[in-house]
Amino acid sequence: MPKKPLPTEQEVRSYIRDRRNWGRWGKDDQRGAINLITPAKRTAAARLVKTGRSVSLSRPFPKDPGMNNALPAQHYMRTHARGKGAFAADYYGIYYHGVASTHIDALCHTWDDDAMWNGRDPKKEITFDGATWGSIEHWAEGIITRGVMLDVPRHRGVASVTQDSPIHGWELEDILVARGITLEPGDAICVYAGREAWQAANPETPYGRPFGPPLARPGLHVSCLPFLRDHDVSVLVWDMLDHQPIGYDIPWAVHACLFAYGTALLDNALLEPLAKVCVEQKRDDFMLVIAPLNVIGGTGSPANPLAVF
Amino acid sequence: MPKKPLPTEQEVRSYIRDRRNWGRWGKDDQRGAINLITPAKRTAAARLVKTGRSVSLSRPFPKDPGMNNALPAQHYMRTHARGKGAFAADYYGIYYHGVASTHIDALCHTWDDDAMWNGRDPKKEITFDGATWGSIEHWAEGIITRGVMLDVPRHRGVASVTQDSPIHGWELEDILVARGITLEPGDAICVYAGREAWQAANPETPYGRPFGPPLARPGLHVSCLPFLRDHDVSVLVWDMLDHQPIGYDIPWAVHACLFAYGTALLDNALLEPLAKVCVEQKRDDFMLVIAPLNVIGGTGSPANPLAVF
Amino acid sequence: MPKKPLPTEQEVRSYIRDRRNWGRWGKDDQRGAINLITPAKRTAAARLVKTGRSVSLSRPFPKDPGMNNALPAQHYMRTHARGKGAFAADYYGIYYHGVASTHIDALCHTWDDDAMWNGRDPKKEITFDGATWGSIEHWAEGIITRGVMLDVPRHRGVASVTQDSPIHGWELEDILVARGITLEPGDAICVYAGREAWQAANPETPYGRPFGPPLARPGLHVSCLPFLRDHDVSVLVWDMLDHQPIGYDIPWAVHACLFAYGTALLDNALLEPLAKVCVEQKRDDFMLVIAPLNVIGGTGSPANPLAVF
Amino acid sequence: MPKKPLPTEQEVRSYIRDRRNWGRWGKDDQRGAINLITPAKRTAAARLVKTGRSVSLSRPFPKDPGMNNALPAQHYMRTHARGKGAFAADYYGIYYHGVASTHIDALCHTWDDDAMWNGRDPKKEITFDGATWGSIEHWAEGIITRGVMLDVPRHRGVASVTQDSPIHGWELEDILVARGITLEPGDAICVYAGREAWQAANPETPYGRPFGPPLARPGLHVSCLPFLRDHDVSVLVWDMLDHQPIGYDIPWAVHACLFAYGTALLDNALLEPLAKVCVEQKRDDFMLVIAPLNVIGGTGSPANPLAVF
Repeated sequence: MPKKPLPTEQEVRSYIRDRRNWGRWGKDDQRGAINLITPAKRTAAARLVKTGRSVSLSRPFPKDPGMNNALPAQHYMRTHARGKGAFAADYYGIYYHGVASTHIDALCHTWDDDAMWNGRDPKKEITFDGATWGSIEHWAEGIITRGVMLDVPRHRGVASVTQDSPIHGWELEDILVARGITLEPGDAICVYAGREAWQAANPETPYGRPFGPPLARPGLHVSCLPFLRDHDVSVLVWDMLDHQPIGYDIPWAVHACLFAYGTALLDNALLEPLAKVCVEQKRDDFMLVIAPLNVIGGTGSPANPLAVF
Repeated sequence: MPKKPLPTEQEVRSYIRDRRNWGRWGKDDQRGAINLITPAKRTAAARLVKTGRSVSLSRPFPKDPGMNNALPAQHYMRTHARGKGAFAADYYGIYYHGVASTHIDALCHTWDDDAMWNGRDPKKEITFDGATWGSIEHWAEGIITRGVMLDVPRHRGVASVTQDSPIHGWELEDILVARGITLEPGDAICVYAGREAWQAANPETPYGRPFGPPLARPGLHVSCLPFLRDHDVSVLVWDMLDHQPIGYDIPWAVHACLFAYGTALLDNALLEPLAKVCVEQKRDDFMLVIAPLNVIGGTGSPANPLAVF
Repeated sequence: MPKKPLPTEQEVRSYIRDRRNWGRWGKDDQRGAINLITPAKRTAAARLVKTGRSVSLSRPFPKDPGMNNALPAQHYMRTHARGKGAFAADYYGIYYHGVASTHIDALCHTWDDDAMWNGRDPKKEITFDGATWGSIEHWAEGIITRGVMLDVPRHRGVASVTQDSPIHGWELEDILVARGITLEPGDAICVYAGREAWQAANPETPYGRPFGPPLARPGLHVSCLPFLRDHDVSVLVWDMLDHQPIGYDIPWAVHACLFAYGTALLDNALLEPLAKVCVEQKRDDFMLVIAPLNVIGGTGSPANPLAVF
Repeated sequence: MPKKPLPTEQEVRSYIRDRRNWGRWGKDDQRGAINLITPAKRTAAARLVKTGRSVSLSRPFPKDPGMNNALPAQHYMRTHARGKGAFAADYYGIYYHGVASTHIDALCHTWDDDAMWNGRDPKKEITFDGATWGSIEHWAEGIITRGVMLDVPRHRGVASVTQDSPIHGWELEDILVARGITLEPGDAICVYAGREAWQAANPETPYGRPFGPPLARPGLHVSCLPFLRDHDVSVLVWDMLDHQPIGYDIPWAVHACLFAYGTALLDNALLEPLAKVCVEQKRDDFMLVIAPLNVIGGTGSPANPLAVF
């Protein structure tokens, strides 16, 4: 199905090692490609707001057990009397990485046998108290940038990406051309793969599970890495994740962008509604806002990304 | 210190009962004053972005025990090997209401002996599975509106509000006049009271504690309620909360705006940095974005509100 | 497969309503059949210790996701320096009811449309702060009594109880006769059904799941209720639970013993090792010790029951 | 106040290094002094049961914030309908080390700059998934042994131990002589220090806090270490913990028994009721049962120890 031959293992390794952004924003930088979102970039993003329509890219907080939710979140209630009135309060607990929760990955989330982002050593930086490098608080001022929809099922004329047909970097380039989109440094891309339609068509097949060897699943091929790097993408917002099996002897495929390029990942976004609104509004871009919780040492954050048209 | 006589108990009760917004957006409405944030309002808010400077209004996720943090949040780490690489993931747990965490209150959070927002019965709506009325998912599309700084210490020429001098509604009106600000329906107001300076001056005095009778503490007097109602405020963003003791035989003072007016509360905002930026930028307004987690049945959400200039 | 006709619906209802122990130990009693464990009974139990062999009846704390563990327990580590040394500490979190965790049910755990134990109203007694009736702290002094093994697979000459052959009360009577066992008031019975062997023979079939309609599963038929009542059993320790489907229009089968008789339930015990030791030691009884955590208002407790020979 | 001169730093170091039990039960042993509790020892313990009176040594599960409870445990309720009935279930979460919870320390809980129990390296054994050496599951078969009360306030004729008068090892010897007690290998000692009376007399002084430098507090002096070693104590059950400040440049005082001798610690026991029963029953010994939760890799367990007379 790919128009082009798959990259060789050597090419893939080169994506990750030879093209990495280490040192690009200084050797002590912990913000990575989010540095590309300058004040001017934020201002330009705000100018994209024209109709004022707002769309949430968040799935519901994953409280319920299920095939794709092996470690359900906790939600517990309390009430407390206050004079003749009262109040209700609640507890939220979540181990948010995995495939159930819409969340952002901080740069410290993944590493390979080389190092973490900017060359740091995970043995030193990953502690019982949290990460001391590349953790989520470095993005506490929020991510406000231009978001660009790359709607793969629409481009293909299908309901969803499937296992036998992963998304390649050159297909994303094709979408840019077909839609007449020009990406600019610091843009966030929303790669819609049709996860809801895929799950509906495969009701008994889990998309992922938290531990053990990864399941086969459709998604983005490692060939998307150069696309992220070439276009200086700040955030990859996606509903499907890395295509599995990866097909190369590397621990991380697209997820390598965290430690290699400093590109943020917004995993398990709910992109079906956004894709529909893009069609309705006849637009491919919008202001995107991501406001991660300010957790010192956190490896990411559950999030409710907002697209405003 | 008040310029005006304090309202009588009858007047205060009238603020809460006679002026409430029940039915204003339909008897089945669960969005309250957030309805005032129309698409046009969002568009206007985005136009306030001029320099692109972004400021987080969030305190750090409150992990550490302390005088103001009787129920610390949980943050625990795990690592998992993945081929020759690995990843770090973490667990966040938080009972976020109280005085330690920057969070938004959903409309279901408080009630008096009359009812919850829009007249509903808490006995029916507050369940072990979450709230079935006025819960946070009704604001999942996010809150994007004009934010307006009302800097009380700057107006008073002091470092912070103090116990003997609560903030009154008429003082907020004075600030509008002094600063030449015109509030519009759906605006969020950021009432800065100088909590950091107050705490520094009172290092041994907790600002609050989660259970038991409320402590005496400086903050906003119930006389601020009519201000919220008169100006159709959508969100009150504050660093100090209700002045305690309330001074009237009512369970909730300013917090009554949740069930009476449908006004959202953004508690324990970090406003000191925002106040400084307002001075630097010579501005009183900005685009404000709040993106609550999409927790079905939740009574609110930890949040990282963003102000963009 | 039953030797006898199944009880009618009327008979089953009579087990639960006509034979209940309400008021037997006073209308304010919250200890139920644990009252049968007198000091003399404890002393007699201790006299059963002859060889000093100790056997744990606890499964491992259920941390790992799996078919029978839809809501895995949390286990997270921390370390803290202390001078030139350090310490490790950990967090345990568990929603322990269900089929994964070895735990004891307090009397407040279940009720039918009539009432809770001793006729109390669950609407009043089950609160957001915990149960105010029949909660686990009433057994905080521990359960130390004679434990009696009733080994159903051994009696049947099979590896395990199966779906088409539930355990009936008359079969338990047969086992008493065949083994020459005399039950005495206050004894705990350990009904071994061969859960491990059943699961090994049915590797794809979950034994249970936490929410939604119960799955079909092998276990104890409601006809066991009169056995518990006739013999004044204090605790039913079991590895399989109620046979599902129940076969009658009642919410609870054997689990009705909690609210009807005040009999404690020790769910998901690990009985395979105990059954082997009974064979080795040529004994059917032993000292049993259960030490529930002293949680005020708790509906039960994870537990590590000990059998000492 | 000590009858004898305090040990020198060299002597204290010798307690910990020269007298340690490493290798005593094999280099791969993870049970430590619990090995001293043989089947014969359990049988003898059971023979101590004469009146059948049972006493819990557990404080309540520490849910409520307070001076001595900086990290309160979580207890949250749920209810679920089941036909015309229903059930209540609850979540328990606890970071149980510290001074609030009655719990047992596994051998892996503490270490100094030398090593963990039996010479292992904490860098290798303490992982994000739990401890892989000396963890609590090695005591899953339970601790059933002779418990011996050493009632220090009774011996001194005071209400409680105080800051200026720590408990020394020679005082424990004196109590043995005064009470005519002979300790035997594998006995557990319950050193009652009067914590409740001390707290009542010092209502504003916390006994401990979880992090940061330890507070001054009354308790057992490091001179108790040789007592534990000389008498081959299996478990030290105590209501007060190590006297602070330690007075020597070592990270752990009495807590060194974990890694040096393999002696278990049962921290924050509730010993006041036990001490009263000992007086009433005119006895100093009893059967003690501790049944830790079977947490693979756990550093200990909340527990409800039982004394049976």
